[in-house]
Parts: sequence; C-alpha cells; structure tokens
Amino acid sequence: MKAVVYKGPFEVAVEEVENPRIEHPNEVIVRVTSTAICGSDLHMYEGRTAAEPGIVFGHENLGVIEELGAGVTTLKRGDRVVMPFNVACGFCKNCVARFTGFCTTVNPGFAGGAYGYVAMGPWTGGQAEYLKVPYADFNCLKLPEGKEKESDFILLADIFPTGYHGNELAQVSPGESVAVYGGGPVGLMAAYSAMIRGAKKVFVVDRVLERLQKAEEIGAIPINFAEGNPVEQIKERTDGEGTDKGIDAVGYQAQAHTEDREEPATVLNSLVGTVRPTGALGIPGLYVPADPGGPDENSKRGMLMVSIGKLFEKGLRLGTGQCNVKRYNRQLRDMIIEDRARPSFVVSHELPLDEAPTAYDKFDKRVEGYTKVVLHPQA
Amino acid sequence: MKAVVYKGPFEVAVEEVENPRIEHPNEVIVRVTSTAICGSDLHMYEGRTAAEPGIVFGHENLGVIEELGAGVTTLKRGDRVVMPFNVACGFCKNCVARFTGFCTTVNPGFAGGAYGYVAMGPWTGGQAEYLKVPYADFNCLKLPEGKEKESDFILLADIFPTGYHGNELAQVSPGESVAVYGGGPVGLMAAYSAMIRGAKKVFVVDRVLERLQKAEEIGAIPINFAEGNPVEQIKERTDGEGTDKGIDAVGYQAQAHTEDREEPATVLNSLVGTVRPTGALGIPGLYVPADPGGPDENSKRGMLMVSIGKLFEKGLRLGTGQCNVKRYNRQLRDMIIEDRARPSFVVSHELPLDEAPTAYDKFDKRVEGYTKVVLHPQA
Amino acid sequence: MKAVVYKGPFEVAVEEVENPRIEHPNEVIVRVTSTAICGSDLHMYEGRTAAEPGIVFGHENLGVIEELGAGVTTLKRGDRVVMPFNVACGFCKNCVARFTGFCTTVNPGFAGGAYGYVAMGPWTGGQAEYLKVPYADFNCLKLPEGKEKESDFILLADIFPTGYHGNELAQVSPGESVAVYGGGPVGLMAAYSAMIRGAKKVFVVDRVLERLQKAEEIGAIPINFAEGNPVEQIKERTDGEGTDKGIDAVGYQAQAHTEDREEPATVLNSLVGTVRPTGALGIPGLYVPADPGGPDENSKRGMLMVSIGKLFEKGLRLGTGQCNVKRYNRQLRDMIIEDRARPSFVVSHELPLDEAPTAYDKFDKRVEGYTKVVLHPQA
Amino acid sequence: MKAVVYKGPFEVAVEEVENPRIEHPNEVIVRVTSTAICGSDLHMYEGRTAAEPGIVFGHENLGVIEELGAGVTTLKRGDRVVMPFNVACGFCKNCVARFTGFCTTVNPGFAGGAYGYVAMGPWTGGQAEYLKVPYADFNCLKLPEGKEKESDFILLADIFPTGYHGNELAQVSPGESVAVYGGGPVGLMAAYSAMIRGAKKVFVVDRVLERLQKAEEIGAIPINFAEGNPVEQIKERTDGEGTDKGIDAVGYQAQAHTEDREEPATVLNSLVGTVRPTGALGIPGLYVPADPGGPDENSKRGMLMVSIGKLFEKGLRLGTGQCNVKRYNRQLRDMIIEDRARPSFVVSHELPLDEAPTAYDKFDKRVEGYTKVVLHPQA
Repeated sequence: MKAVVYKGPFEVAVEEVENPRIEHPNEVIVRVTSTAICGSDLHMYEGRTAAEPGIVFGHENLGVIEELGAGVTTLKRGDRVVMPFNVACGFCKNCVARFTGFCTTVNPGFAGGAYGYVAMGPWTGGQAEYLKVPYADFNCLKLPEGKEKESDFILLADIFPTGYHGNELAQVSPGESVAVYGGGPVGLMAAYSAMIRGAKKVFVVDRVLERLQKAEEIGAIPINFAEGNPVEQIKERTDGEGTDKGIDAVGYQAQAHTEDREEPATVLNSLVGTVRPTGALGIPGLYVPADPGGPDENSKRGMLMVSIGKLFEKGLRLGTGQCNVKRYNRQLRDMIIEDRARPSFVVSHELPLDEAPTAYDKFDKRVEGYTKVVLHPQA
Repeated sequence: MKAVVYKGPFEVAVEEVENPRIEHPNEVIVRVTSTAICGSDLHMYEGRTAAEPGIVFGHENLGVIEELGAGVTTLKRGDRVVMPFNVACGFCKNCVARFTGFCTTVNPGFAGGAYGYVAMGPWTGGQAEYLKVPYADFNCLKLPEGKEKESDFILLADIFPTGYHGNELAQVSPGESVAVYGGGPVGLMAAYSAMIRGAKKVFVVDRVLERLQKAEEIGAIPINFAEGNPVEQIKERTDGEGTDKGIDAVGYQAQAHTEDREEPATVLNSLVGTVRPTGALGIPGLYVPADPGGPDENSKRGMLMVSIGKLFEKGLRLGTGQCNVKRYNRQLRDMIIEDRARPSFVVSHELPLDEAPTAYDKFDKRVEGYTKVVLHPQA
Repeated sequence: MKAVVYKGPFEVAVEEVENPRIEHPNEVIVRVTSTAICGSDLHMYEGRTAAEPGIVFGHENLGVIEELGAGVTTLKRGDRVVMPFNVACGFCKNCVARFTGFCTTVNPGFAGGAYGYVAMGPWTGGQAEYLKVPYADFNCLKLPEGKEKESDFILLADIFPTGYHGNELAQVSPGESVAVYGGGPVGLMAAYSAMIRGAKKVFVVDRVLERLQKAEEIGAIPINFAEGNPVEQIKERTDGEGTDKGIDAVGYQAQAHTEDREEPATVLNSLVGTVRPTGALGIPGLYVPADPGGPDENSKRGMLMVSIGKLFEKGLRLGTGQCNVKRYNRQLRDMIIEDRARPSFVVSHELPLDEAPTAYDKFDKRVEGYTKVVLHPQA
Repeated sequence: MKAVVYKGPFEVAVEEVENPRIEHPNEVIVRVTSTAICGSDLHMYEGRTAAEPGIVFGHENLGVIEELGAGVTTLKRGDRVVMPFNVACGFCKNCVARFTGFCTTVNPGFAGGAYGYVAMGPWTGGQAEYLKVPYADFNCLKLPEGKEKESDFILLADIFPTGYHGNELAQVSPGESVAVYGGGPVGLMAAYSAMIRGAKKVFVVDRVLERLQKAEEIGAIPINFAEGNPVEQIKERTDGEGTDKGIDAVGYQAQAHTEDREEPATVLNSLVGTVRPTGALGIPGLYVPADPGGPDENSKRGMLMVSIGKLFEKGLRLGTGQCNVKRYNRQLRDMIIEDRARPSFVVSHELPLDEAPTAYDKFDKRVEGYTKVVLHPQA
C-alpha cells in the first residue's frame, strides 16, 4: 500500500510499504479515508526529535473497518470509525483511571503510545491506505454511516479533544475569561472549546494574521504579540486584572515576542503574567525532555527558566500532558452530530495522499493559509 | 503591651508597643494565649525578604476575645478562638470562591493578607499580649472553652491546614502513595494529613534525624537524602514506579542534596523525578518573586530552572500557593476535638513571650530539637 | 413607603408601610428600581403555605444604595446592586462551604433565609420602594452604573442562578443531553443554562404553548406532555436511551399528565423514567415538608410515592434544594455584561408597583403571556 | 465440577455441573480458591427475586488463573486474581466513564452484569470449582502470589468496595460525621471505609448486638435502634445537628424500628431525618423495581413513600446504585498489601464448598455469628 514515509529532516515521501496484517484477536484493519497532518508531526519532520528515517507518519486517522480479529465484539466490517491518536489498552492502571494517554501496556517501558510517532511504540502511522488498530473495541469510536461531516469528525482524533483538554486542565467554567496562547489548529480548538464551555471572554495570542482572523470569527478577541507585550494587551482588556484561566497551545518551540528566535519558556512565563491570582493554566502544548535543536544547553535537556516565584505568589495551578482523547471524543462527536460544534472551520486543505510532501513543506513554512491539512488516501 | 519586634537580620526583641484598639465595627481584640513561631517568620528574620525593622511578628495566633466591635454577630467576650494566618474579608471575589489566602480587600493592591508579615497588609502580628482581628465573625474559629488541647488547636492557625493543603493541591486520595519533601513542621503536618486521608504509603525526605524519626513515629517512611539520591531511594521502595503524588514542604531555601548550599529548584525537580506519570504535586512550600539572598541572579528574581520537559512528558499537574486556612480549619478542629487528630506531636517547646529572642535564634539554627515553638504571652 | 402586602389567599395590596431603617453596622438601605414576582410567591399567594397576612413580598430585588451602616466596607452610596434572594451572613459553617441558601445565622433555628418569604426569617420583602439588606458587603453584587440591561440583571436575584443551579445539581457537562421538566421562568433559565454549558440536546417539557415556543427559540426541543407521555416522547428522540441528565423545574404543584389535577410526584417519577442509567437529576423545583393544599394526606406532609427501585437500578444521583445564588451570580453577571447571556427573553411584563395586584392575579392564572413580571417601584 | 446451585426458595445444593470452557479469546478460566456468600444472594435464596432454580450462585470470587484465551495480554497461568462482582467490557460508553456496574455490552438490553445473579446476564457464578471470566484483562485484578491475606482480598470482589462506594456517593471527606444504617457486612465496610477516609465520627445503626460490637471495635459509635429512635439517638450525640453524611447499607428489606416487620422506606426516611441540611446520602443498599415479597402493592413495584419535602428543604444530595467495583479495587487492594486496611475482621466463617447449604441457612437466619461466610472450593 502507499504511505507517507519520513526520509530525514524536511523530507517525506509517498512510498509503497507492506500492508498491515491482523496479528492479535483484538485488532482491526481500517481502510483510511481521512488522515490529518499535525503540528507535532512537524517536530519530527524538522529533525527536532530522535525520529529515524523510515517511520510512517500519521496519528490522526479516520476510516472504515475492513477486517476484524476474532476477539472484537462491538464492531463490524463497514463501520466508519475515528481513532484517538493515543493507542491504549483500556485496562491498565492508567487507562482505568481515564489517563489513556499514559497507557502502560502498548509501549512497554513508557507511559503512552501513539500511531506513527517516535518513541510512542510500534504502531505504524495512518497517513497510508490502511491502518492496524489494536484493542479495537476500545480504540475505535463509531461514527454515523456515510461520508457526512468527515472533516469535522477527523478532528476528533487529536486537535479538537486536545484543545478541549487544555480547557479541562485549566478547569474552564462558564463565565470565566481565558487567554489562549497560540492560534494554530490546537489553539483555535482550545478557544472554540472555551466558547462551547461558556467562557465569557476568550483571547487568542498569535502574530499570524489569518489565525487571528479565524479566532475573531469564532468570537474570540485576537491579540497580536507583534504589536506589543501580550500580557499588557490582555490586562488592558480585563481592567488590569488578567484572565481567570490560561492555555498554552504553543509548547517548546515558542517564538520570542520581540525577536525572531525561539524562546522555549516564553509562553509559560507570559501565562504566569496573564492569569490572575487563584487561576489555573492548561498546558496541552508539547514540552519535551530532550530537544536536539533547542536554543541552549538547558533547553536541549527540557530544562526551562520559569517564574516559579510569581507562579506561587499567585497561587496558580497547572495541568500538563498529552490529551487523553478517549475522555472527550464521544461527547465531542455527539456535539458534531447534533450541529452544536463544527470544528472543521480550521481545516484549510483536503488533498490526496500523493500531495503529502508538498503539504508538509507548506504547512511547515506556514505559507498560503496552510492551517490544517487533511489527506484522503482513498481519493 | 509586650510584643516581639523585628530589629533587623537575625535580631528580634520583646518590647513595649501600643495596645491595639477597635477601629471598625467588625473587629475584635483577642488576648493572645498561644502564638507560634513559623518557618516563614525565619525568612524575615534572616533578612531574606523586604521586611523593615519595627514589624511585630506572629501570624499563628490563638486567644480569648476581650473586646468586640458593634458589628460582630456570633462571637462574645470570653470565647476562645484561633485565627487563620490569612486575614480575609469573606466577601470579595476570591474569598467567596474560598481562596481566602488571596483576599483582595484586606491588603489593597495585592491578593492576600496576613498578620505580622511583610507586604501582607497593615495587620500587626500576634506574638504579643493582644491582637486585633478584623472581620472577626469570618476570621475567628471558635474552640471549646478552657485550656484543653491548646497546643493542638494553635496549629490550626497555619501549619496543620498548610500541610493538609499540600494534600488537597496534590489531590491525595485513599490508597495512594505520597512523597513529602521536607520534614519540618509543615512537612510533618503534610505527612500526617496524608495518613489521615488514607494514603497507603507516605515518604518523608529530609536529612535532620529527629525530623525523620518523628516521621517514622506517625507511620511514614523516612528518606535521608544525605544517604543517597532521594528520587532513587523512593523508586526502589515503589517497585521502580515512583509515588502517585508529591508534596513540596520546603520551598525556595531548599538545600542541594550533595553539597551544603542552597539550590532553589532542587525539590521541584526531585518531585518531577519522584512522582509517576499522571500524578500531581502539591506545593505549599514558599517560593517568592524576589529573594535578595538568592544564590544567583535568576533566583533573586524568583526564576528557577525547572524540568518542564519531564513534567509535561509525565503529564503532571501541580498546585501552588499559600494555604486558604479557612477552607480546612473547621474540619481539622473537629478532628482534634474528637481525638481523631493530635498534631501537637510536632510541638517541641512552649515558652513565655520573653524567651522569643532565644527561641528565634535556636529555631533558626535548628538546634536542640527546636522543631516548633509555641509562645504564651499571658504566662 | 409603598409596598406589596399579602392580605390573604389570592389577594395582595399596595399599601403604605414603614420605611426600613439601618439597625446594624453591616446593613444598607437600597432604593429598589426593579423587583420581580416569582413563581414561589404564588405558593404564598395561593394560600399553599403558612404565610400570614401582612407579609411584604419580594425576594428578587435590584436597586441603588441609598444609605450605609458604619461597618460596610466595599460599597458606596449610588452603587447599583442586585441581591440574591437568599439572605446570608457569609461566615457561618454553611456559608463558608458556599451553601449560602442554608445560612444558619440569619434565620435562627433554621438553615436558610430570604426576603419577604414565610418562615425564611425577619427580612422584609423588596416589592417596595426601599429594602434593607443585612451583611451588605456579602449580599450585594455590584452592577455597572446606569440603567442598562436592568431586565437581565434583575434575573440574577433568583431565576437565572436557580436554573443554572439545576444544571450544577445534575452536573450537566458539554455534549450531554438534558431533559428539563417545566417551561416556566425557572425551566427556561435551566434550559438556557444547559445551552450555555454546551449541552448537545435540551428538551423542555410543558403543555403551555408560549412556553414551549420560547424553549424552541433558545434552541431547545419542546415536548408537549398534553400530546403524549413525555418519557416516551423523549426516548423516541434519543434512540430509546433517554437523556444523560434531567432537571425538575416544576416542584410539588406538578400537574398530572393526563388529567387536570395535581400529582406531586409525577415530575420526579417521569425524570426517573427519562434519564438513562448512570445519569443525574437536578431538582431546584420546590418541594415542601408541609403543604396544606396537598391532594392527599401524604402529600400534605411532603411524603411522596417515588420510584426508588427504578432510581436505584439505574444508579441515578440527585441533588435538591434552594439555589445558593451567591455561588453563581458573579459569573452569570459577567456573562450578561459581555453579551454572552441575555436571559431577559423570559421577561414578559415590566410594570409600576401599583399594578402588582393585577399582575399577581394574571401571573397566577397564567393568562395573556404573563411569563415573568418585573415591577419598578420608582417608576 | 461441583457448584452451589439454587433449587428454589430457601434451598441450595452442591451439585455436579459442567466445567466452564473458553469460548472467546478474551476469556480466562479461574480455579476458584475463595468465594463468598453475599447478603444479596439471600434476596434470591429467599425467593424475593425472579430467580429460577438452576442458577449457580457466587459473584464474590477469587482464584488462580488456569487457562487463557488467545487475546489475553497481561495475565498468565498461575496468577492469583480477584474479580469485581460486576462483569464489564471496559470499552462501552458507561465503562469508559467508569460506571462499570452499568456495562451495556455484557448483558444485552440492560445496563450492568454480574456472575451468578438473576437478570444480570449469562455469567455463571463462582461458588464452584471453576469460573469463566470474560474480558479478563479488564476484569481480573492481580494479587500478590501465594495464599496470604486471602480473606482480606476476597472482600475486594464486592463488600469492601461497596462499603467504600457508599462513602463516595455521600462524598465523605476528612473531618465529617457519618451515619451508617445497617451493621451487616456492607455496613461495617462502609463504616470502616469512613474511618479510612478520615471521618471524625461514625455511627452504625443496627439491632444485632454482635454487629454493633464489631462497629465499636473499629472505632464507630453503635446505635441500637431497638433502644430508641435512631434519628434522635444520633442527634443527641451531635449537639442536635445531625451528621454531615449518611449511608444506607440496608436497602429494601429494611426492618421497621418498632415492630418486627419490613418497612422498605424506613432507612431512607431515617437518613433524611439524620443528616443535616446541605448533607449527602450514599445509597449502596439495594432497592429493586420489582419485589414479589414486598409488604404492599406499591413496594412490590419498587414505589416507596419518601419524605421528599424534608429532603428538599434540607437541600440533600444522594447517590444510588450498584458499586462500580473497578473504580476502587486497585487502591483498596494496595491498602491491604501495605497493611493500611484489614477488612477481614468481618469474616466470621471459612468453610469448604460442601457446607454451602448449611451456611446459607444460618447466614439467612443470622444465627451463631454468621456475619460473613467465605467458601473454599479447593479445600
């Protein structure tokens, strides 16, 4: 079958690879109809991880069940399903506690697995014609039959739940104000989720105009950090108080506000400044313990200089970590079905699999409105 | 009246000061019968804050009501009461949300007030014969009449709730394992609270033998960091997994594990190493945005080098900040009354007010078993 | 001053009564600009309580501060404020735990106080030119200056928070389905709050067409119980599963579904049938321990025949009781200020105080679209 | 193999039945070493359910894995395991939300399955030499090797978690007072769990002296309802206030307080009287929608006369339903391993399987200290 294969920094290719085969009774094979490129794929693509050439990318996957193992109970051939990017068993200590992003079964020696991602276990990615899904009853979320709303449902694999997760980590509740740093796909989903949860006022901080414009379209207040310190801009718009909650949808490749270079702790420290005493921070944005491309020795080891004194003085709480997609994907799916959520506004491109190399290149350079790309392997 | 007055680094004196007077209808005057010296008093005593000479110390206060303003409703002369170290109004946005440590009324321009503490508002300390308590109906917690269990009840002003708060921030629940860094009064109260809450296994990390011994007496497992990396010691005792939760009862004056110098982030980073993925950290230990005596330029500004990459990879949550004593003091009082808690095991000395200078000196040097000193101004 | 005085069953009059005077330092006098008639006023009006003639009605009050006691700290003359219907002290055990609807200070011997309501303490109602507010710093919520959005803000006194409270009791979260029984003012506010909280699907059950129409206007699905068993109607629209959550916005004067008589437990039992296993019920609708007009001996004593076997088999949870308005009114006010909530769609009439007798009569008979009446004593 | 078979009201026999066989890849066969008789077995035994002769009883099961299906991942032959009484799949909507007592997969058309219980699905009971466990990775909880603490661990199948569940439903937290109605095995486990969770004061209401004595031994206060109204007795011991929380460990076969007859709602109504305003009730005690032996027509249909007016006036919350054992069994197991819990104090008899008929007879008659019987099929 055809698949998107990592060849080395800044290079992917669509190549023939072996078809997946069922090797365990609880597995299914899914014919992939939609698979999205994620901002975190770019970490590998840019050589900012330990990923070796040969990996098949793709952890945001949706498709139709083609073949089932003998142990699968509640699925059948032809079911349209979307899978969380996390691979999880459903029965280990962490899965039972609903931390499915930290499954201890699927990636021995580590807490957490994913499809097509370095160090996340042996699970081949879904930017391909077919995908093997283990523990299929647990990992497959059924969708309505047909083709409808496919560009909404594909976002259930990662970014819609991840944006929502930022709100859960920050415990956003109705009537609160929220500052979202980062207006990329996850940031927009975080802001959109905050609106769904009844936030009174949502800020989105970025410097890319089309992102800020999308933020405004969903009812958020855009803050362009190129036009001045975002902490001060938000304080001005909140009577000097700051927001109740904050979300980091940027992570370790954060841009310094005033110069064109990376400053890995800048979003964290801006959030400490932005959020008012007693507030909380949700940090779905990725930080890593080893970053070969970090700007200095400390950041290469995941050590960042953080304003702990201020954090403590304000009595802030914070939550971090990969989204446990399974906690949220059913409810968010139902909101899409009932027309209460339409996250697909964030999708900018729908392309055949063959165009993956171009799409990676342009998405990485953030050109031409490449906000979010969905690939269709069967097209 | 007599009071303990700060004279400058490493010096306090018992001096005559003016008696407090009722100036607002909601105030009461309390005749202080017990007032404890707190580890955080030592921050001022050592010149590690902006405290100016002349401050009357004392934020852990218990006594008998002597005089009442006309607006006080539920108290009467002769009531024995203990006051949270936080001064709070009870009706501002933060107090109503139960963040009484972040009251916006009592210390204008800042969130949070306290008795006898630098930058915490105009509230004179209680290491004195009398104390003025504002918003008395809100701030006074009634105790049983008489003198009974006074050395238990005095701990309700700060360290018992603060230790308990560490558990709340870390969301310690029955059957979990907990690592408490710091075996001083707050650390012991944190470990004791963890036992009360049904923790299955509690570790206390320190190097002072008498603290480790007290930890063992209450059922915790002592970890002497002078005998080896505490993270490794705890992992060995938890099948390599680490603990479910962690509590920082040390704060910014943390000792390096292997040398005799301060290393402000060492406890935070040890906790990140100690706690297992999906866990949570409670950080009642004090961190400050400005520390004139910090070991380097960053720490002087409250900026610490923290292992954010690892924190994120493990998906840890954390909570910080001063204890909102009012959230817990009633239930903890009731546990003392019903003989379900006897926190006074931590009290090492009960002294007349006049001995405050000696007590400060010895407590600061941690000599002669000076774990926790209670002063009795009326003695 | 003029006030609405209860004269006996089905009779109120606007009469001259004595002006309120400040008798305690924490009180203020409010010049009432808006005061609403509540469905629970009708319980007294209809003689379905122990209310004696002479009571001044009115627990939904908004106005401008005219005079302040010496102990009031954060308010000033001219402030526009809205008061929760519950009178609360802010410092008793229940208030500190945020159960301000169960204050033990303001109505000795009972948990809970209110303005102008039988058995709820000595607090005169606000359907009058002036109102005395005790513990004013705690009980007054400040509003923006001027006259703007007065018909939204007045709903913060009771029905908007009470509808929201139904959702809190039922723990309604994003993506859930909710059945609201009762399409009166509280039911509509409950449905509106469910939408704000991100419910995927909200049903409103009533038989009054204009209520069902309002429900539809805010995005809910109207269920007319006159057209068939509401449990069956809702199951049909939820694939036979029932809803995740349910809210009782009717209470003890519930109508039987098929005949024109009261059947006090019918809504409770319908909810048990409507909500799916593992669900939860919020019951803000009033039930009373003594109802002189109850249809049988048991209901006169507040004893109702409830489907406990089914409730248990489904593993349902439920929450009851008067709304603790203070928990929610600040956030809901902020949503109104930021144009994220406009609850005034429920207000049908704005009238001068003198028209109170007519308004009571028509509201009680539910004629002419009398959904919700706001009186303006200063008009 | 030998198994305990239901023959009809008040009769069980140990008979030869067919051995279980693996029929699905996720199943295992367990050689049962301990299996307990539950109070809810008596409902069937007494003919108070729709149970037909032929059922093999036994839902509290512990043993050693003998044989595994090809899909089982984390278990191996020889593992000692204990199974929740609920059979659950781990991946349906309810299981994923941690309501494993309401699994929709294992008992089609109903939410919830169990071993050896009428209407709870096709799962043969474990009062037998062997037991088939479906979805074994999910349903088996591993225990330390060997035979140690077997009489503690067997209680993890049902009554220890069920008692603990009562506390969760009532949200019992440290420093609270709790009234437990019922001093049978579940009641004692509820009281024991309340102590573990830091309750300040726990009452146990019963009239069987040996139960009251056991309650006292674990630190609870025994209340003999034969000696006077239990509500009044508890109020006297709580300064007239009542308890913060209440637990119903009796269910629908409740005894009237003053006469020797059943009064199904008596415990519920006593709890409404016992618990103070703002409190909460946990109701793990079983109520059923159809009770052929109920004392009147209403109770036969599960309809009970409940003091809803008082419940509402007090603003009580309540939670009901079968325990979701999987939520708690891991933590409770760990407490047993670490010697922080020893629930086996409740076990009165350990017998070979052959003595099951006698044990049922005596346990049902509550004679000779038959508090809790554990059978050992391999003995």
